[in-house]
Amino acid sequence: MTQYFTEEGSVQAVNDRMGPNINPRLAVVMAALVKHLHAFAKEVHLTQAEWDYGIDFLTKTGQICSAERQEFILLSDTLGFSMLVDAINNRRPEGATENTVFGPFHVDGVPVREMGANISLDGKGESCLFEGRVVDLAGNPIAGARVDVWSDNADGFYDVQQPSIQPQHNNRGVFITGADGRYSFVGIKPVSYPIPDDGPVGQMLGHLGRHPYRPAHMHYLVTADGFERLVTHTFVGGDKYLESDAVFGVKTTLIAPFNRVEGGATLWHSPFDFVLTPA
Amino acid sequence: MTQYFTEEGSVQAVNDRMGPNINPRLAVVMAALVKHLHAFAKEVHLTQAEWDYGIDFLTKTGQICSAERQEFILLSDTLGFSMLVDAINNRRPEGATENTVFGPFHVDGVPVREMGANISLDGKGESCLFEGRVVDLAGNPIAGARVDVWSDNADGFYDVQQPSIQPQHNNRGVFITGADGRYSFVGIKPVSYPIPDDGPVGQMLGHLGRHPYRPAHMHYLVTADGFERLVTHTFVGGDKYLESDAVFGVKTTLIAPFNRVEGGATLWHSPFDFVLTPA
Repeated sequence: MTQYFTEEGSVQAVNDRMGPNINPRLAVVMAALVKHLHAFAKEVHLTQAEWDYGIDFLTKTGQICSAERQEFILLSDTLGFSMLVDAINNRRPEGATENTVFGPFHVDGVPVREMGANISLDGKGESCLFEGRVVDLAGNPIAGARVDVWSDNADGFYDVQQPSIQPQHNNRGVFITGADGRYSFVGIKPVSYPIPDDGPVGQMLGHLGRHPYRPAHMHYLVTADGFERLVTHTFVGGDKYLESDAVFGVKTTLIAPFNRVEGGATLWHSPFDFVLTPA
Repeated sequence: MTQYFTEEGSVQAVNDRMGPNINPRLAVVMAALVKHLHAFAKEVHLTQAEWDYGIDFLTKTGQICSAERQEFILLSDTLGFSMLVDAINNRRPEGATENTVFGPFHVDGVPVREMGANISLDGKGESCLFEGRVVDLAGNPIAGARVDVWSDNADGFYDVQQPSIQPQHNNRGVFITGADGRYSFVGIKPVSYPIPDDGPVGQMLGHLGRHPYRPAHMHYLVTADGFERLVTHTFVGGDKYLESDAVFGVKTTLIAPFNRVEGGATLWHSPFDFVLTPA
């Protein structure tokens, strides 16, 4: 008996159409996507005009994308979808450092620097000593861990956003831990900044009564043989956007102390230990 | 107490962020969208690689859109979402003619033609007399009803898809009923055709083991003062794609007879009555 489309049977009508010899994971993912999308339309009784608006919004979101801009990632980020996917795929045991979103500003090929080196190359901002240890769940130091760090500059831009203004690899560095598991480097106390808000996603945030700011943070990608890859930030404690990060990246355990130093080599000191999970 | 993002509390974290003075309908629609999107990711345990693939798919879908092509509508159509929105917004009483998708090929400004006129201007295809009545739920004729019709030509293309090949308004016409509620016109027996399948949606259909064809159909937009706007097709009974319409437009009640005529003015005869619902 053929299942023609009906409002009640809409999900089955669509999902029954899948062929018998397709990728089984694709079948599972698409069947669930159709089920949840249809449930959404039914729950809110989506009108034709709202559907038109949605089609137009998605089209504009795609059309503003370029080599330098990914508006669909921004959409995913601002709907908490990126953080959710990150959370689902990076469940960690108690005590391990938590993941957060990778973001679009990581760069490959940044040079390994001497431990303690200054990564701020443009002379702007308030200097800060970042230091701590990379350890396993039992607190033992991990030697040979690769600590890849990056942040915005004092104007709120990453070097890749201002290639003609900032020195290459400004506020970036890679550090390899020794036997003590320690890392340290000098950077700046990061500043909060808005995500690009002059496109469809920015308009959406405006309509939702939300601001586009991210609280100040330092990015870390920490890897070591035998351990799970850790993608995270440390957030500047006390930042006014901590409780309203536009992309929902903040976790309580990732808020780091930034202590004012009197008469030291840097203005600030931010200690933080990274606890890796066995692979 | 601040609600930072957690996997369990992801929906609340996002939806609590909405401002207090926003459009209340927007708040309802977005809260439901976030809830269902997050439920989808959680149900299938969406991987980071699948998320990457989805971002890339949506981006390509947006970027292929142009003045002549709307790939997001095609995506909505092929996931049954367009038909669902149509169904939700056009619930009809028993006996009333059902709606189906409008499609992208309607044209405004088509001339009103004499009752019985031939709308096939390119001389191709198998001629067919379409006739019937426009009536109310009690079967009374509706005078002054506007019957706007359009179909593809014998090659499976609408005139607007081949502006340099087909005559303007080929297989299109508008007819106004008289006191008897009757309409009639000569067209061709429509043919089945594929939706545009050389883009991301076509690739998706391929991966899902689905073909891109629509069963042959004649489009109708029937309007009359005091009645709901009827957007529908009649489908050619016996078409081999009736049970697998790529956009799920077929409803049992919309399958029309196409009877072969021996020795008549046309090769085919397709009678169909339209029953309008009071506004």
